[in-house]
Amino acid sequence: MTMTRRVTAEFVGTAMLLAIVVGSGIMGERLAAGNEAIALLGNTIATGAGLIVLIHIFGPISGAHFNPAVTLAVLLKRKTTVYDTIGYIGAQMIGAIVGVWAAHAMFAEPILQLSIKARDGLPQGFAECVATFGLIGTIFSTQRSRPEITPTAVGLYITAAYWFTASTSFANPAVTIARSISNSFAGIAPHSVPLFVAGQLVGMVAAVGAFTWLLKEEAVSD
Amino acid sequence: MTMTRRVTAEFVGTAMLLAIVVGSGIMGERLAAGNEAIALLGNTIATGAGLIVLIHIFGPISGAHFNPAVTLAVLLKRKTTVYDTIGYIGAQMIGAIVGVWAAHAMFAEPILQLSIKARDGLPQGFAECVATFGLIGTIFSTQRSRPEITPTAVGLYITAAYWFTASTSFANPAVTIARSISNSFAGIAPHSVPLFVAGQLVGMVAAVGAFTWLLKEEAVSD
Amino acid sequence: MTMTRRVTAEFVGTAMLLAIVVGSGIMGERLAAGNEAIALLGNTIATGAGLIVLIHIFGPISGAHFNPAVTLAVLLKRKTTVYDTIGYIGAQMIGAIVGVWAAHAMFAEPILQLSIKARDGLPQGFAECVATFGLIGTIFSTQRSRPEITPTAVGLYITAAYWFTASTSFANPAVTIARSISNSFAGIAPHSVPLFVAGQLVGMVAAVGAFTWLLKEEAVSD
Amino acid sequence: MTMTRRVTAEFVGTAMLLAIVVGSGIMGERLAAGNEAIALLGNTIATGAGLIVLIHIFGPISGAHFNPAVTLAVLLKRKTTVYDTIGYIGAQMIGAIVGVWAAHAMFAEPILQLSIKARDGLPQGFAECVATFGLIGTIFSTQRSRPEITPTAVGLYITAAYWFTASTSFANPAVTIARSISNSFAGIAPHSVPLFVAGQLVGMVAAVGAFTWLLKEEAVSD
Repeated sequence: MTMTRRVTAEFVGTAMLLAIVVGSGIMGERLAAGNEAIALLGNTIATGAGLIVLIHIFGPISGAHFNPAVTLAVLLKRKTTVYDTIGYIGAQMIGAIVGVWAAHAMFAEPILQLSIKARDGLPQGFAECVATFGLIGTIFSTQRSRPEITPTAVGLYITAAYWFTASTSFANPAVTIARSISNSFAGIAPHSVPLFVAGQLVGMVAAVGAFTWLLKEEAVSD
Repeated sequence: MTMTRRVTAEFVGTAMLLAIVVGSGIMGERLAAGNEAIALLGNTIATGAGLIVLIHIFGPISGAHFNPAVTLAVLLKRKTTVYDTIGYIGAQMIGAIVGVWAAHAMFAEPILQLSIKARDGLPQGFAECVATFGLIGTIFSTQRSRPEITPTAVGLYITAAYWFTASTSFANPAVTIARSISNSFAGIAPHSVPLFVAGQLVGMVAAVGAFTWLLKEEAVSD
Repeated sequence: MTMTRRVTAEFVGTAMLLAIVVGSGIMGERLAAGNEAIALLGNTIATGAGLIVLIHIFGPISGAHFNPAVTLAVLLKRKTTVYDTIGYIGAQMIGAIVGVWAAHAMFAEPILQLSIKARDGLPQGFAECVATFGLIGTIFSTQRSRPEITPTAVGLYITAAYWFTASTSFANPAVTIARSISNSFAGIAPHSVPLFVAGQLVGMVAAVGAFTWLLKEEAVSD
Repeated sequence: MTMTRRVTAEFVGTAMLLAIVVGSGIMGERLAAGNEAIALLGNTIATGAGLIVLIHIFGPISGAHFNPAVTLAVLLKRKTTVYDTIGYIGAQMIGAIVGVWAAHAMFAEPILQLSIKARDGLPQGFAECVATFGLIGTIFSTQRSRPEITPTAVGLYITAAYWFTASTSFANPAVTIARSISNSFAGIAPHSVPLFVAGQLVGMVAAVGAFTWLLKEEAVSD
């Protein structure tokens, strides 16, 4: 794959991911008549199922990162270049924003919005740390032992993490920033973004360390 | 497979698809006591699970299109003939109508109905365009890289799309026309059909273009 | 596998299937506070997931029929003997009853009950006919083309059929009879049983005919 | 894998399992506005999906037991040593407790709690016996016939068992003890723990006996 095609795949895939996350959040909120658990169920099923499909579609082209934390983890493992990393993260950021706007357009909402949904406090940051730790562990471990199940494993992991982390598991800096420009179910107030991104980066670095050690001998015994 | 068997498979498969879509919509509406999110959850789970199974059943016989947009996309890629295309689309249209009537018969509803559920406005058409773009992308990409997961990927894609597109993702002209003759949860007023079909065809053509380019080099590197 | 082990597997598997169907129905009814759609969602997810697992567990031992309609379809295809058929159906019937009683015991309900839930009328019979037609089609088609996915396909089919058939898809004479001795969410009044079983047998015979023809050439081209 | 790595994997995996079970229970309880069926749906989907992923992540390292009943069953089959068994069970117990505390920290709850949710009576103990019988059967049978599907089968089994057993299927002594220190949706009063653990051990021993016999000939015919 040429760089152009890979970066385009990251752009389109991340845009579709955000359209799914934000769009299904709006649908859930509109239909659930105030019952947030039901809204989150719809949001969860759509995101989990959609993520599995997106990784199947774009994985063979770009690796289907859709997530600067994943791209940086791959860089930490020296399995990509700084040049590619910059291209990927740029495409993810722009794609995420375009995806949010596409969701707004489909649901006849104002395109430009800012979230007022505060998600503050250390526990939320810790939740993002745990969420991202598990996500990176899922990717690293399945890529080593059974790469063909990585798409399903990532989708199921996010399905679980929407419910077991207090923050509903953003686990992705591009997703976090883009969700700040949607004042809907999936939104996050801009002032809460730095806490989330910090938690995600700490969790990512911890996972790279932990799973590099945990999975080390596997490489030897292969 | 002979043409007769393939066309019969498209007929039976599309009829079962519509029985699933319309039948589970009626079940959801009857049981959910006015909570549309819960009705849509049941409708979504039934459709996603059912679609995976139908593609497994009929895929080895006819390819399991069940969808004129898919058959036309295959024609655009010159992987089928005009003669087959006409037979497939005819079988899909008749099957879709028979499936809706079968759902009405099972639920003791009047067989002949017309929907009064207006689904209008450009955002709805855009939603159908996005929904069909993703569906064609799912099929083209997985057919190239891992054809054995196409049934699961398509079912999961529609599971997500029921929630993230504002139109609940019809993404299929035969389904759209047939749902206009059911005045139930899954219905669409006849006057809204042209907008939906237009959005679907635009999304299909865009996807054929985009994914032909995105997946091009894959063929070279194989 | 000896006959003893195979018949035991049918007995234990059918008992677990009924414990799942009836038990999750009771759980749903108790927790859902009158919202039948939510009760059916829990009942559906438990049954679909449980069925996939039971077929994986007992498939390698007995073929995991758990269903006289399936065993009779296999007999019609002359892939089993009359002697085995009698043993299987007897084990399924006794297992189904024991499974219902196990569910009652777990939920501290009276062990012996009779359902008063009438499920009458031709549309219900037609729904069972459609439900069983699709079930046999799922098994026959996937067994021919991709036997390793039959467990998943059957579980997903029943997941869909709980919602798209007006009868919530019993599709199994042993299950139907056993559910008549549970006056809970999954129950069926004894007087409604003959209609259901008749619909199931008609659907089964129709499916054997239809799918024998639809899948015929596949055998030749292999 | 060295013993250190395997025990660490059991520790981290069991901690993540409990964070999922307890965390998603808290999330469900907070959002579901008193509807326990909806809370249990979220709890179920998160646990089932999360368990599949955890077994994929840690299976290649430690076998992903996360459960003293499973480790003891493996010991009964003489497929592990007493030394390993002690290490595994110790890691599972400590991991389970740490996981509950992590859930409390994420949701800004007091770290130290004791459940007051009584789960008493013989039917509950019988439910745990059935739940564990099925779990061990799932593992033993799929490990013999198709080990690559064990993670999915275990996750789907627990998905079903959350609904069909009256106890919502703890099926794990470490999970049971750890859930007694969380006064939330997933909690269990300390005085109910011995009944649950007894039921689990009886079910485990019964399953080892039953499935050793049921699966015996398979080994011969291979």
